[in-house]
Amino acid sequence: MTIAINETHDPAVKSWVESANRAEGDFPIQNLPFGACRRRGSSQPPRVGVAIGDFVLDVSGAHRAGLLPGVAEPVALACQSSSLNKLMALGQPHWSALRRELHSLLRADGPGAAGNQDAGRKHLLPVAEAEFCPPAEIGDYTDFYASIHHATNVGSLLRPDNPLLPNYKWVPVAYHGRASSIVVSGTPVKRPAGQSRSKPLEPVQYAPTERLDYELEVGFYVGPGNALGSPIPMGEAEPHIFGLCLVNDWSARDIQAWEYQPLGPFLAKNFCTTISPWVVTLEALAPFRTAAFRRIASDPAPLPYLSSAEDKEHGGLDITLEVWIRTQKMQQQGAEPVRLSSGNFKDMYWTIAQMLVHHASNGCNLRPGDLLASGTVSGAKSRGCLLELTTGGATAIDLPGGEKRRFLEDGDEIILRGSCQSPQFARIGFGDCRGTVQSASA
Amino acid sequence: MTIAINETHDPAVKSWVESANRAEGDFPIQNLPFGACRRRGSSQPPRVGVAIGDFVLDVSGAHRAGLLPGVAEPVALACQSSSLNKLMALGQPHWSALRRELHSLLRADGPGAAGNQDAGRKHLLPVAEAEFCPPAEIGDYTDFYASIHHATNVGSLLRPDNPLLPNYKWVPVAYHGRASSIVVSGTPVKRPAGQSRSKPLEPVQYAPTERLDYELEVGFYVGPGNALGSPIPMGEAEPHIFGLCLVNDWSARDIQAWEYQPLGPFLAKNFCTTISPWVVTLEALAPFRTAAFRRIASDPAPLPYLSSAEDKEHGGLDITLEVWIRTQKMQQQGAEPVRLSSGNFKDMYWTIAQMLVHHASNGCNLRPGDLLASGTVSGAKSRGCLLELTTGGATAIDLPGGEKRRFLEDGDEIILRGSCQSPQFARIGFGDCRGTVQSASA
Repeated sequence: MTIAINETHDPAVKSWVESANRAEGDFPIQNLPFGACRRRGSSQPPRVGVAIGDFVLDVSGAHRAGLLPGVAEPVALACQSSSLNKLMALGQPHWSALRRELHSLLRADGPGAAGNQDAGRKHLLPVAEAEFCPPAEIGDYTDFYASIHHATNVGSLLRPDNPLLPNYKWVPVAYHGRASSIVVSGTPVKRPAGQSRSKPLEPVQYAPTERLDYELEVGFYVGPGNALGSPIPMGEAEPHIFGLCLVNDWSARDIQAWEYQPLGPFLAKNFCTTISPWVVTLEALAPFRTAAFRRIASDPAPLPYLSSAEDKEHGGLDITLEVWIRTQKMQQQGAEPVRLSSGNFKDMYWTIAQMLVHHASNGCNLRPGDLLASGTVSGAKSRGCLLELTTGGATAIDLPGGEKRRFLEDGDEIILRGSCQSPQFARIGFGDCRGTVQSASA
Repeated sequence: MTIAINETHDPAVKSWVESANRAEGDFPIQNLPFGACRRRGSSQPPRVGVAIGDFVLDVSGAHRAGLLPGVAEPVALACQSSSLNKLMALGQPHWSALRRELHSLLRADGPGAAGNQDAGRKHLLPVAEAEFCPPAEIGDYTDFYASIHHATNVGSLLRPDNPLLPNYKWVPVAYHGRASSIVVSGTPVKRPAGQSRSKPLEPVQYAPTERLDYELEVGFYVGPGNALGSPIPMGEAEPHIFGLCLVNDWSARDIQAWEYQPLGPFLAKNFCTTISPWVVTLEALAPFRTAAFRRIASDPAPLPYLSSAEDKEHGGLDITLEVWIRTQKMQQQGAEPVRLSSGNFKDMYWTIAQMLVHHASNGCNLRPGDLLASGTVSGAKSRGCLLELTTGGATAIDLPGGEKRRFLEDGDEIILRGSCQSPQFARIGFGDCRGTVQSASA
């Protein structure tokens, strides 16, 4: 049930929006990710938009102008909304039909391209003038722990002899996160205060965290969803996934260490979670499907409810992921961000279909716009958070200009980036997921 | 900042709704809990209602008929909504003013009582003809672990030598629950399937849970809430609490045991959570405030951010809580439910103000209608779930008629009840929180 490669993926097609045709851009005509935004400073509700080069196309405006003639009425209505929830609820055939219409409108060589260009430009907003909102009203947010490398690295810090718990290779482990504190890229991240205890028998204190960290994650939004009591079979999983985004699951490690037993992370995580503004559809990612994580021979096979031949063969996603930092000093000196790490989403132990199916396997109902995130993406040689990069804060990272980091300092900007690249297809990017640490007193 | 006892608590006042005047009823004129319901079978959106005896008063209808003349415009508008969120957002002075108006309309001896009675009856719906909805759209649901007795009992099953973890007396431990699967009293509870492993090295299976349990909890709804990054001080906590309800946090113990490390409970809990339909306001509970849990001398004092003299003196709530069971056999034989346990909410280690303040202490934003639940309410001699009552399933409970229970069987109905009683005040009840276990294949 993975989506087939079709004419909308043809790398030869260019857009009349010139900035979409740069080889290194995130948003060529082959991508067409969805978001919600308004003109900066406007008090109007956000509108559904699609990224094309350096612009956002106002989908509803273009439809009303007759530029998306093949769009069905329910899709047109959904795109008049201030978020993507209604579009997400409609399902894969509708998403795919809308993508074809958008592709047809924006291509440089299509029938009526000149007319489209003249009329279509009126519905383009420069990204630089846009203010983004979370693309969906997120009812529930769930965070997984799907990287075996991350689980092993973190487990090694706590239990050197036995880093991986016995359930890891059976259960796509997850916990519920906080929906209210999810913010869109660019929102400042205030350093949280909380309880911590540096050592047993030391005083417990309530103070600003001294071990603030980022976590590089990939999120995905639920489409139509399921009724309470009705699990989703593996074979039907992917049509329930609208698209993917980047997620920074900011974490306060000192608060986490003290609070997390026995019920898991809570205040260490729920002060802020940053999402990228764009949702890259699963259809846009079709050329970058790859095999699921290759389990070693001694690993158990996934239980039947988490297993399908197709998922094993195509369930993975080849997405290069990077973390960049720009400290306050670098900003003041006009220096460019520095890359802290690079990994790939194909290294996850569980696929997105397995995460979704496991979540609904007890009958838990998923609703359109719910966000599921992967957990920190680490690989055999890549580490998706400072806790791993600095081995729990033991070894500092050297930055150009003489700065060092064990954990984040006030003024640090963290930028997550994601992209798919192959010689045969156009580059698909996710857009930046940014956040700057604000002091606790701000 | 606890709410003072006032004329709306006067036990001598009777209502012209006769059924409200029964000594053992849940809904006298001194209670006036809020909910959302419609006439059974209607396709209309639910309406804001107030319980009075065996009836629901349609608040908006009564206001439009001029029967609540002192209600301010924002309150009137909020009560036209299909849920309580807008009313919750308005804040304590508005809630209190509405309560006085409702009290004035419904009292038997007020000015114009005869006229009120004639006109008011047109806006009463018999509870038996009402279909209830969740009273609020719950954005986020958080479950605490605030009973030291429950934590100790459960910890003893896992760690006999060291039942209570080192953070327990410092941190009001909590985790995020699932908002989508919260259902109102009366909704069937389908037995979930999930992964479990009976012993290490035994096969892992995906199958219907064999250890289905209830958990007796008290929930409370957030009022105005706080902005992201702005904690709530103890002295301002209670005006953020609209009111309380009963919560059954259904739990699958075999799934829980296998999945919960290291990130806490997930599928073991999120298949269903049942709430009672009525929200008993904090003002209605004013006569039943009591001291917070008395810590033993060797316990640490709560950290300053969780401490206030007033909370220590009045932060507790004297609410008697009971769990009743009615098996399928009992239902078939027309037998009454049997009480499984009885406890009291004043035995909780943390107060509701402490739970709320801790939740927001890192800047996490709470929104109107968010639900916080206490965790299982157990006491020195009371046990709020079967896991505790049967010592992890080791000892069966004998029921009248020869049945035994270690965990719940298909067809079992569980009923939670709560009430406040004192010689000086009218009895305040919470109404039933019911759910019947449906087979996994249903």
